[in-house]
Amino acid sequence: MEAQRKLLNSAELCVDEALCGLVRSAGGLCLLRGLRVVVRSDLQHLNGRVGLVSGGGSGHEPAHAGYIGTGMLSAAVAGGVFASPPPTSILAAILHLHNAGASGVLLIVKNYTGDRLNFGLAAEQARNRGVSVAMVIVADDCAFERPGKAGRRGLCGTVFVHKLAGALAEEGCPLDKIVAKVTEVLKGIGSLGVTLSPCSVPGCLPSFQLPPGDMELGLGIHGEPGIQRLKVACADQVVNTMIDHMTNPSSQSHLLLNSGDSVVLCVNNLGALSCLEMAVVTRAALSTLEARGVVVARVMSGSFMTSLEMAGVSLSLMRVDPEVLKLFDAKTSAPAWPNLSSVCVSARQYTKEPPALRTWAQEGDAHSEGPLSPVMRSALQRISSALLDRQEELNALDRASGDGDCGNTHAQAARAIQEWICIHVVPGCPGQLLSVLAGLVQEKMGGSSGGIYSLFLTAAAGHLTEGLSHAGAWANAVHAGTQAMMRYGGAEPGDRTMLDALCPAVDELLKVKAAPSGGEMAVLQAAVKAAELGAESTRDLTARAGRASYIAAERVTLPDPGAVAVAAILRAVLESLEEQS
Amino acid sequence: MEAQRKLLNSAELCVDEALCGLVRSAGGLCLLRGLRVVVRSDLQHLNGRVGLVSGGGSGHEPAHAGYIGTGMLSAAVAGGVFASPPPTSILAAILHLHNAGASGVLLIVKNYTGDRLNFGLAAEQARNRGVSVAMVIVADDCAFERPGKAGRRGLCGTVFVHKLAGALAEEGCPLDKIVAKVTEVLKGIGSLGVTLSPCSVPGCLPSFQLPPGDMELGLGIHGEPGIQRLKVACADQVVNTMIDHMTNPSSQSHLLLNSGDSVVLCVNNLGALSCLEMAVVTRAALSTLEARGVVVARVMSGSFMTSLEMAGVSLSLMRVDPEVLKLFDAKTSAPAWPNLSSVCVSARQYTKEPPALRTWAQEGDAHSEGPLSPVMRSALQRISSALLDRQEELNALDRASGDGDCGNTHAQAARAIQEWICIHVVPGCPGQLLSVLAGLVQEKMGGSSGGIYSLFLTAAAGHLTEGLSHAGAWANAVHAGTQAMMRYGGAEPGDRTMLDALCPAVDELLKVKAAPSGGEMAVLQAAVKAAELGAESTRDLTARAGRASYIAAERVTLPDPGAVAVAAILRAVLESLEEQS
Repeated sequence: MEAQRKLLNSAELCVDEALCGLVRSAGGLCLLRGLRVVVRSDLQHLNGRVGLVSGGGSGHEPAHAGYIGTGMLSAAVAGGVFASPPPTSILAAILHLHNAGASGVLLIVKNYTGDRLNFGLAAEQARNRGVSVAMVIVADDCAFERPGKAGRRGLCGTVFVHKLAGALAEEGCPLDKIVAKVTEVLKGIGSLGVTLSPCSVPGCLPSFQLPPGDMELGLGIHGEPGIQRLKVACADQVVNTMIDHMTNPSSQSHLLLNSGDSVVLCVNNLGALSCLEMAVVTRAALSTLEARGVVVARVMSGSFMTSLEMAGVSLSLMRVDPEVLKLFDAKTSAPAWPNLSSVCVSARQYTKEPPALRTWAQEGDAHSEGPLSPVMRSALQRISSALLDRQEELNALDRASGDGDCGNTHAQAARAIQEWICIHVVPGCPGQLLSVLAGLVQEKMGGSSGGIYSLFLTAAAGHLTEGLSHAGAWANAVHAGTQAMMRYGGAEPGDRTMLDALCPAVDELLKVKAAPSGGEMAVLQAAVKAAELGAESTRDLTARAGRASYIAAERVTLPDPGAVAVAAILRAVLESLEEQS
Repeated sequence: MEAQRKLLNSAELCVDEALCGLVRSAGGLCLLRGLRVVVRSDLQHLNGRVGLVSGGGSGHEPAHAGYIGTGMLSAAVAGGVFASPPPTSILAAILHLHNAGASGVLLIVKNYTGDRLNFGLAAEQARNRGVSVAMVIVADDCAFERPGKAGRRGLCGTVFVHKLAGALAEEGCPLDKIVAKVTEVLKGIGSLGVTLSPCSVPGCLPSFQLPPGDMELGLGIHGEPGIQRLKVACADQVVNTMIDHMTNPSSQSHLLLNSGDSVVLCVNNLGALSCLEMAVVTRAALSTLEARGVVVARVMSGSFMTSLEMAGVSLSLMRVDPEVLKLFDAKTSAPAWPNLSSVCVSARQYTKEPPALRTWAQEGDAHSEGPLSPVMRSALQRISSALLDRQEELNALDRASGDGDCGNTHAQAARAIQEWICIHVVPGCPGQLLSVLAGLVQEKMGGSSGGIYSLFLTAAAGHLTEGLSHAGAWANAVHAGTQAMMRYGGAEPGDRTMLDALCPAVDELLKVKAAPSGGEMAVLQAAVKAAELGAESTRDLTARAGRASYIAAERVTLPDPGAVAVAAILRAVLESLEEQS
């Protein structure tokens, strides 16, 4: 078995390179040369305030350096992947803040023996140098019902502590008051994780084996398996199990949560869960909490305290009152802090009424007839018949170059038109008729042809808003429809599409504006001829758009069915008008 | 082969549930009821400004709804996973903004035929209703050297367009001016992706097969494979290949990039790359660009336009001038926009000198002798001899309950002390000596024992800062050291650790403060006796901390080696003092 390939330069370099990448991207961060210690660039602004230091093993990015900034941490110390940082680095961070004028330094430490000892040692060393240092231990893990001597682990709830302590320090709160407040808030923080995959330390094998379809519940953030292996259930059920477990009063490490309590919810991607799944889990967590009468005041959802590439998620909850919420909402420049709003999530109305949209069918009902109605009705009947007559011919042409259903889709449109004119008035305004037809083909014709015809008809409709549109307006309308088809569809004449019939016809139709009165039919005849010649010419063209573009050019020797259909429609219009004149 | 298990409720519900999760988390977003349309809650603030609509298939979260807010989008329309949204939803979004008072609506559309047609159709329908609508097509893909008729695909560069157009709209810029500016900026945007894994649409098989160790270069964001399959190389090399490809002038879809140009860099997680890898890739991209003389003005690194759970990354570059940069830096409330600083990345000094820290060895050199020096030197010699004498005994005890090296680690410390006192002055100030010893055991003893002894010595040192410390100060120092050990190490008396010897001894030692003058040796004798009894008593204790806690209690019947070692050290001190008195 081989270690998983990762996008790194080497297992040895990855921690320092990642710190460099993070620090260089964030304008407010600096590295202490030769150490894995990241500090705020603008420490002159500490100015007698308390400095905050956190840190721990790497592999939890963006923790911890991502939380450095105004209103959050002053410094972060990184160890190797999942390894506690050395006390000398921690001491360097503390002394750097002390030298920059911090009135005291608070160490925020996750409850792991290595971190406790190393941060503790640095704290004692700093005290011997006259620095006022305090430490808070974060132990927010709700996994173990009977935690061992080492106590509950520190998980993503640590980020809440960074935020609250940071806001207090920014306000100028003294060290002892920050410790007191954080200690109080910590009682109301709990976290639990679940994962569908293990992770692997760079250069190493996966931290455990998990068969597809299984998941681990109640894991830490160092690749260790959880307290229980379960089958992957649906998201709502998984989240319900998690919140049950977190708040189960018979567990020694439960979070006390009563109906009516307000909480901040953090949905933390352990590394490789898709953002789609994250959003679904977020919704599930909100529903589950609200179903228990809990008021969710704020939600943060994203990657906050990861375990390399674990495809899992942890939930962290913090009970809040207005005072704590104010601290949570305070501004920060920390690069990993999300762009949150300060509106209460549970109380908020989050849907709005959409604008009233009459459907094409409803619009059709509201129209009234006009002098042009019988002419247009006849033309539609003729078009429908022509398309149904040629269904098999169009299918055959399409079989040579596409999926062989061009006749069928046009026949579907034809039948839909026949049905519609049976039971509806044909509106006297041509624009209204084209709008109705646009909706009709979009819904009934299907496929990309439906969309393209609909686009043509919609764009054309805007040019025919008067009851008795003259031939020039019709020419402009057809021209506008064709232009829209080209603009949005991306094809051009010569690409072996319906445009090869339509564009030559439009060129002829536009001549109607300069034609003598009574010359309209001659123009239309010329246009139909041009369309038919254009359709025929597609025999020699290489498909550059549409489905035929995927077929080798030498295998396509018949005309394009879409172009043939367009020519047939135009001829049907001509014949209908000739019949009536 | 089975579809991959995901943390969802169902493939059918996932898009609507994810939208709900996103909208509910973000205070500024609302859903149009019954549609997959997300709009700003505060549209009253549009107030005659241009409204911006984007959207496309789902599976790209946080795109596109995550970019809704002041200074970015006004609305986003989502389709199914990797499927274009229906025109009626797009039209509803446009009309909603129009009804809310937008002076015009700009559609920002990624270059895919389905999106072009559907957004185009909605645009034409909205125009027929009197809405002023414009559309910009984003086609930033640099993969294909000779792109087909459909042109370059729209990728993560779209997010830049959302930002710039949003800032312009916020300023009150009219629709045509926004279109002109965006069209100009688009010429300087390019993107390219690479992946180490495929992704899978919920309920479906992976979109392609990729053997471990292979990667795909130049992919889109819909799970399709790339233009080239390569072996996974180191991050620097992969990034160099990507930027070479993106800027290769012989490719029709290259981004023109010259030395001296300023760019904004977006390092986009395609879904499942670890944050550690993301940071390493970010560093590599910065170095590669700067090596080509390109000035990187800003960097955004995170999940911006994902492809479900693809373990890959895309790079997007945008050439910028000060005007564009000002728009990029403008404030936004969009929930997916990161907390960026507005400091030029390439120009910035990002390292600082760490504080000068004298090592324990350097400190040792700076000390001078005092009256207590000979006494302490003798005691150290005696302790070292005692620990070396008992090396095998301690190893044997440890084999019964741990890894059998307790004697060895103590012997290492003993030899280090012997070497040190050979060549150094023993400082007259006991606190200074203990500080030196703390550094020495931390470095030379190794393991958690080194850390714990170091912690004891460091905490004790702070109480012995005077040259002639009296017995009470020594008792206080040992007490403080023991307290620090308990506080940071988390163990207590009774847990079968060295504390079971140390704590009873400390209780006796503290009595020295009430003892008559001259009674100090009697107190020390009592303390040593208490330590030895305490060590012996650990035979009957169940380990609750340290390595022995992992062994079944009934198998451990010998005393704890750590406690025995502590008792031996105390006895050595006593014997040394008795010898000298």
